[in-house]
Amino acid sequence: MVANKNIHSVVATIDLGSNSFHMLLARVDDEKIRVLEQLGEKVQLAAGITDNLQLDDQAMERGYNCLKRFAQFVNDMPLGSVRVVGTNALREARNRKVFIKHAEEILKHPVEIISGREEARLIYLGVSHTLRSSKDKRLVVDIGGGSTEFIIGQDFEPKLLESQQMGCVSYNKRFFVGEKLTASRYAQAYTAARLELMAIEQSLQKMGWQEAVGSSGTIKAIANACKSAGYSTSEADITREGITWLKQKILKLGDIEKLNIEGIKNDRRAILPPGLAILEAVFDALDIDKMMYSEGALREGVLYDQLGRYTHEDVRERTMTYLQERYRVDMEQATRVSEKALETLEQVAEAWGLEDEWYRELLEWAAKVHEIGLDIAHYQYHKHSAYLLEYSELLGFSKQEQQELALLVRGHRRNIPKEKFEEATENSEQLIRLCILLRFAILFHHIRSDQNKPIVKLVAKTKKLEIRFPENWLEENPLTRADFVQEASWLKRIGYDLNVS
Amino acid sequence: MVANKNIHSVVATIDLGSNSFHMLLARVDDEKIRVLEQLGEKVQLAAGITDNLQLDDQAMERGYNCLKRFAQFVNDMPLGSVRVVGTNALREARNRKVFIKHAEEILKHPVEIISGREEARLIYLGVSHTLRSSKDKRLVVDIGGGSTEFIIGQDFEPKLLESQQMGCVSYNKRFFVGEKLTASRYAQAYTAARLELMAIEQSLQKMGWQEAVGSSGTIKAIANACKSAGYSTSEADITREGITWLKQKILKLGDIEKLNIEGIKNDRRAILPPGLAILEAVFDALDIDKMMYSEGALREGVLYDQLGRYTHEDVRERTMTYLQERYRVDMEQATRVSEKALETLEQVAEAWGLEDEWYRELLEWAAKVHEIGLDIAHYQYHKHSAYLLEYSELLGFSKQEQQELALLVRGHRRNIPKEKFEEATENSEQLIRLCILLRFAILFHHIRSDQNKPIVKLVAKTKKLEIRFPENWLEENPLTRADFVQEASWLKRIGYDLNVS
Repeated sequence: MVANKNIHSVVATIDLGSNSFHMLLARVDDEKIRVLEQLGEKVQLAAGITDNLQLDDQAMERGYNCLKRFAQFVNDMPLGSVRVVGTNALREARNRKVFIKHAEEILKHPVEIISGREEARLIYLGVSHTLRSSKDKRLVVDIGGGSTEFIIGQDFEPKLLESQQMGCVSYNKRFFVGEKLTASRYAQAYTAARLELMAIEQSLQKMGWQEAVGSSGTIKAIANACKSAGYSTSEADITREGITWLKQKILKLGDIEKLNIEGIKNDRRAILPPGLAILEAVFDALDIDKMMYSEGALREGVLYDQLGRYTHEDVRERTMTYLQERYRVDMEQATRVSEKALETLEQVAEAWGLEDEWYRELLEWAAKVHEIGLDIAHYQYHKHSAYLLEYSELLGFSKQEQQELALLVRGHRRNIPKEKFEEATENSEQLIRLCILLRFAILFHHIRSDQNKPIVKLVAKTKKLEIRFPENWLEENPLTRADFVQEASWLKRIGYDLNVS
Repeated sequence: MVANKNIHSVVATIDLGSNSFHMLLARVDDEKIRVLEQLGEKVQLAAGITDNLQLDDQAMERGYNCLKRFAQFVNDMPLGSVRVVGTNALREARNRKVFIKHAEEILKHPVEIISGREEARLIYLGVSHTLRSSKDKRLVVDIGGGSTEFIIGQDFEPKLLESQQMGCVSYNKRFFVGEKLTASRYAQAYTAARLELMAIEQSLQKMGWQEAVGSSGTIKAIANACKSAGYSTSEADITREGITWLKQKILKLGDIEKLNIEGIKNDRRAILPPGLAILEAVFDALDIDKMMYSEGALREGVLYDQLGRYTHEDVRERTMTYLQERYRVDMEQATRVSEKALETLEQVAEAWGLEDEWYRELLEWAAKVHEIGLDIAHYQYHKHSAYLLEYSELLGFSKQEQQELALLVRGHRRNIPKEKFEEATENSEQLIRLCILLRFAILFHHIRSDQNKPIVKLVAKTKKLEIRFPENWLEENPLTRADFVQEASWLKRIGYDLNVS
């Protein structure tokens, strides 16, 4: 599915978390967000991930049932006004496509899978909107069902983004389900979390922070428990003493079902021990003594991100500029190619069904970064560009968007791997057409200079593209002519007829 | 095969070029090279590359026959004293492994396939040793059978290295074989070369040069022709006028067999038209008026490179430092891991058959760059590190060496892909053992600090590794213990028994 990026006054976000699914419906007025509706259900997707990384049928079913309820709210909303994001459980599940397809059918809106760092960025965006403005650096920790995110930021600006694959649902499955709740089980979960944290604790501590903030249901539950037992202060919803008290309490009970603490809902109980083990490991590894709880979360972040795209800033633009600089792209050439590509798109968008805003964005970005792979090696550099675009954690992009961008760049020279396009997306024909336009713009600027270029007219039909140069121009520029002769034979391989005159 | 990197007084280089194979036998005295023997044969490997990139049987046979003659000189020379390098035809051929294996059996020395940029670097090394010292920037052009290399350098220092896939043998096959020699055929070859050159002409011109130098048999033949007809000057073996004259002469003949010019050998005739078309395209694209010829070539470069490794400088060290800096490696951690890895290697080298110098180098380099992939993404970063190591054009390394380095790094965390090791090298068992040592060093320094570390003793047996920590140390460091418990289960999967006490 393709989203239309118009401005909508009512927007919704659905967060397909590894523990819970959430829906947030809001009205946008003057760049402000007013929440109209909030729903959440413990779907526990992560509990249904098998050892060989398949999402099992029961978990899918739980997910579909929840989405059917959400669907009543969003079914009739226009495309582009609802963003649906999936996180760790769907990053992990090898059969995620099955789930995504059916979820899209139910919701009638596209589902995006986002990377761990992108998730961290969006969580920070959500949390930072709940906190007072401050020059202090903040550490934000969000313990999810399948992953835990760590962000150090200042005001609205994230400075360090990390995501670790440990979460309360996956750790519950690994260490507690079907076992007696013992000190030794708890210690195993704690140790596993400490081992994970080793990879990032030094870089977090090196950057430093003045204040630790936690978000997520797990941290809310622990904060509530601390408060109910008098372990909270005005500066700390969660303290080290509170953690120690809660740990001793649940280990003494030996059975989490017996736990009865004000503020911890029944359906939250089971995942409290793994959540607490992870939080204790975080306190120890990062030397934290107190933590405030924030209501902000991924879903709010997604809303603010959407709002940002409407107005002042699209983080995806910044990501593209970063890639260009990091991989030393010839900026002048990138600009020439991207301008030509967009100009060309205007001529054929209607005939080729490329009027959606996403296609314009995709083409422009592909033009800007198609040469990044040259920084790795000249030989087969289009493949290196595509690799970087597919596997880098590009802030602001979903996995699917990254894959489409990578594919477009992969096909920008030599053969166009049609079968790869068809595997990756339902809109493969549109993507192939975009790719043809990108290739045209690149060939047009094959000679890298600002010398006068001719005015060219493009006419597109279903499987045909006509390119008309001014009279005699091609005769006087045999190199360009030779280029397009070669290009015609590449396009022929994928069933397109190129006619240059 | 594994080369021993001792210092040898008689050394040889064999260059498996796409047009000719060459052998150079030399004596090394006080860091000087004295040539004892030179042999060359027109094998025309590139003529045997089919459309689907298979090297055909006849071409292989021609190659083997030539190598059998070379073998008399080098069979009895010690391992490490003979370097055999393959270039474009063997880079292209998908079935290269068949040829390499048999060539190694004939020569009894390992064959390395080098990248285009590495070829350019070595050509420059060879050519720069034939030229007077000068502060001027020099452009060196080497037209080979399958590729053409371009280098801008100053004295012995290359500043820009490029390699294009166009050569006199491949262009002969593509444009001339079985065709009448006409102006139109020549123009097609010329245009194809101009299109190739577009990718690099601007970056070359931007850097600029004061003097153009050509190497290779093609350029020598054209220089000889120019000289015989009086078109050479004391400052230019080849001039633009000379090229025009020669082109007109061969087009007028219409049949290259009729060409009779002093200095052009009979077996060089057939590839003169494509070679000339490429050189004319180079003159036009780069706006060159005159060019000097240099006797230096790839084979001399390989010798000087070898000599450099013995003495002052190993370019591979510089390449590793470049990667570390480019991909922002945590240098302190890299140093800690690499020191620990080498210390560990000493303890087990004998028991595990890892005494060859190459294993020590490989382990040290892998330790230095194992984290470069983190710069792309945290998730699965070991695979990104391996990708960069496999596909970057690493100066000083052969393709096989890069692959081994990439493999070692690929296996540094999570599962060790045994089948990939077995596919890639005959020494897979040794490489897996190196990988185990690398993993040990990384786990040993899992906590990234210089805090006091225990003294550890390693004992290796065929499929077993014992690690002995000081008494009680593991009990007091449960995180490390948990790390090695996990590690034991990874090693078990590839049939190794890890015993930690």
